[in-house]
Amino acid sequence: MQRIKLADVARAAGVHPGTASRALNPETREQVSPATVRRVARAAQRLGYVPNPVARGLRTARSFLIGMVVPDVTNPLFPPMVRGAEKVLTQAGYTLVLTDTDNDAATERRQIELLRARGTDGFIVATARWHDDLLAEIAAAGVPAVLVNRNTASAELPYVGGDERTGVRLAVDHLVALGHRHIAHLGGPADTSTGRERAAAFRQSVLQHGLPATDLVWACAAYTEEAGAEAAGRLLASARPFTAVVAGNDLIAFGVLDALARAGRSCPGEVSLIGFNDMPHLDKLAPPLTSVALPLAEMGAQAARILLSRVDGSAGGPPAQSLLGVELKVRASTAPVT
Amino acid sequence: MQRIKLADVARAAGVHPGTASRALNPETREQVSPATVRRVARAAQRLGYVPNPVARGLRTARSFLIGMVVPDVTNPLFPPMVRGAEKVLTQAGYTLVLTDTDNDAATERRQIELLRARGTDGFIVATARWHDDLLAEIAAAGVPAVLVNRNTASAELPYVGGDERTGVRLAVDHLVALGHRHIAHLGGPADTSTGRERAAAFRQSVLQHGLPATDLVWACAAYTEEAGAEAAGRLLASARPFTAVVAGNDLIAFGVLDALARAGRSCPGEVSLIGFNDMPHLDKLAPPLTSVALPLAEMGAQAARILLSRVDGSAGGPPAQSLLGVELKVRASTAPVT
Repeated sequence: MQRIKLADVARAAGVHPGTASRALNPETREQVSPATVRRVARAAQRLGYVPNPVARGLRTARSFLIGMVVPDVTNPLFPPMVRGAEKVLTQAGYTLVLTDTDNDAATERRQIELLRARGTDGFIVATARWHDDLLAEIAAAGVPAVLVNRNTASAELPYVGGDERTGVRLAVDHLVALGHRHIAHLGGPADTSTGRERAAAFRQSVLQHGLPATDLVWACAAYTEEAGAEAAGRLLASARPFTAVVAGNDLIAFGVLDALARAGRSCPGEVSLIGFNDMPHLDKLAPPLTSVALPLAEMGAQAARILLSRVDGSAGGPPAQSLLGVELKVRASTAPVT
Repeated sequence: MQRIKLADVARAAGVHPGTASRALNPETREQVSPATVRRVARAAQRLGYVPNPVARGLRTARSFLIGMVVPDVTNPLFPPMVRGAEKVLTQAGYTLVLTDTDNDAATERRQIELLRARGTDGFIVATARWHDDLLAEIAAAGVPAVLVNRNTASAELPYVGGDERTGVRLAVDHLVALGHRHIAHLGGPADTSTGRERAAAFRQSVLQHGLPATDLVWACAAYTEEAGAEAAGRLLASARPFTAVVAGNDLIAFGVLDALARAGRSCPGEVSLIGFNDMPHLDKLAPPLTSVALPLAEMGAQAARILLSRVDGSAGGPPAQSLLGVELKVRASTAPVT
C-alpha cells in the first residue's frame, strides 16, 4: 500500500505542488482559481489522498492524538465509552490512543507522561479518583482533559457521567414498591465519585421513604465480583436482617449472587438484587438481573465533543458537568418481599 | 504538569545539555566519563525525565506507535487481547493505538491509511477476512503486521490464534460421550478463518465418530446473538432432528438460547449447547454455558512480541503461525441425551 503524496495529486491535476497545497487548504483556497480548486480536489479524491497528519501537526502545533485512559478495558463498562469517543474523534480527524492502567496509579502517571511527551492534544480520563493529584496537575498545567464516568472532589475539569442519583433513587423506589424495608447497599470504593455518589444517593433515598439504613451501607474494596462476594459474605455473617441489595455495579452484584448461593439464600426468593451499568446479556443470567442502565456510548461521545471544543479553543470558561439520563431495567432478580 | 526537558536534567547535573544527551544515550555513553553518566542518570531519575519519543522517532525513523485493529471492541473477545498486547508494547516503549472498525471494510481501510500516514510502525490486526485485499496490500508493501484471532487464506502474514481444531474436537468428543448422535454446528461467517476452521473441524470430528452431519452445519451471518437466533430459528423450522449444538462463539450460543426458549425447547433437557471463547461470567447464565476457552490475553501478547521482532528486524523469514492451547470448560448447558 503506497501512500499517495501531495506531489502525486499535483501531478494528476497538472499543477505545481504549492498550488495543490493551497487548493486543498481551506485557509489558502481563495488564492487559487475555483476551477483549479475543483481539479485538485477531484484528483485528491480519485487517488484517495490522505493529508499527512504529522506534517499537519507541525503546521498547527497539534499531534491530532487524543489519549483515553481507562482503568480496565476488560470491564464491559468501558468499551462502549471507548467506541462512542472514537467515532466522534475519528470524524474530526483525530486518532484515539487507548491506555489501560490496570487500576494502578503509577502506571497511569507513566502512561499519561509518555502521551504528553508525544504531544497528545488532550485526554479523556475514566480513571479519576476522588482526590487525584495527577488530574490536579493536569488541570493546573492547562492540558485539555475531560473526565468521563468518574469525577474528582475538586471538579476542576469538565465531567460527563450518568445521573447517578436518579439511578439509585429509581432502584430504591422499585424495591420499596415491592414491599422491601431492609435494603442494603454494597457500594463501590469510597475513593471513586461513583462509589461516593451512589452511597450518598442511597442514604438520601431510603431516608425519604422513612427507612433507617445507615448500618446497611457498606463500601466494597473494588468494582469486582470478588470484592462484592467478600462484602456480601461479611454482611451475611453480621446477621443484620435484609431482604434486598442495591449493588454498586453489576460485577459487585455477581459477587452478591455468589455469596447468596454459598449461604443457601435464594435470589429473588429471599433476597432481591439490583445492579448498576446494565452490562450486556444480563437477561441471560440466573436470575436475569435488574440493573440501572447508563448511556455509555453517548457518555464517551459527549466527552470527546467537549474535549475537542477545548482543544480547538472554541469553548472555554469554567468546566461543565454533564449528567446524562439513566434508566432502571427491571428483570427477575427483584420480587415482592415474602 | 510541566514536562521535564533534557536542559533541566543537564542543569540539575551541572553539565552541558550535549553532555547530558550523550550520557543518556546508550550508543554514545562511552564518550562521557562514568562519573558524569552516573550524575546525569541520577538527575534524570530524580526529575522524572522522559525522553521525547517524537525526537527519538526522528532519529530512528520510527514513530513508536503500533496500530491494533479490532472489528468491535464491545465484543468481550477483544479487550483481553488488547490488554495483553498493550502490556508488551508499553514495556518496549511503544504506544498502542486502538481502532474499532465496526466490522466495516471501508472504515478499516480509512483507519489503516490514516495510521500509515502517521508513520505507525506496524499493525496487529484482528479483523482479517478469509480473502482480504487490504491485508494482501499491506503484506506486499512490507508493512510489519501480525494477524491475531483471524487468519487469511493466503497466510502471507504471521498469525497468532487459538488451536481451533482441538477446541472443536473437545466439544464434539464431550457431546458424543454424553450419548449425542445428532449434533448441529451453527458456525461463524464463512468469510472468517474462525468460521471456516471451526466448521471444517466439526465435520472432521463428527465423521471420526461415525456420525453423518453435513446437513447440520450452518454458517451464521455474523458472530452476534441476532445472527445465532436467526440461524437456530431456521434450523428448528427445518424439522431436522438434533439434540445438541456446537455454536461458532458464545454470542451465537446466546442467540441459540433465545430461539430454543421461543420454540419451547429446554437447554440442556432437550438440547445441549456449547459456546466458543469462554466469555466472562458464563457461569452466571441460565444454564451456565459450556464453552471452549482461548488464551486471549496471551494471544494479544504473543502477537505484539512477534510484531516487535519484525519492526526491529530481529526476526524475518516466512511468517509463522502460532496456535495456542485451548480448554473445554464444562458447565451445565451440556447433559446426557435423554
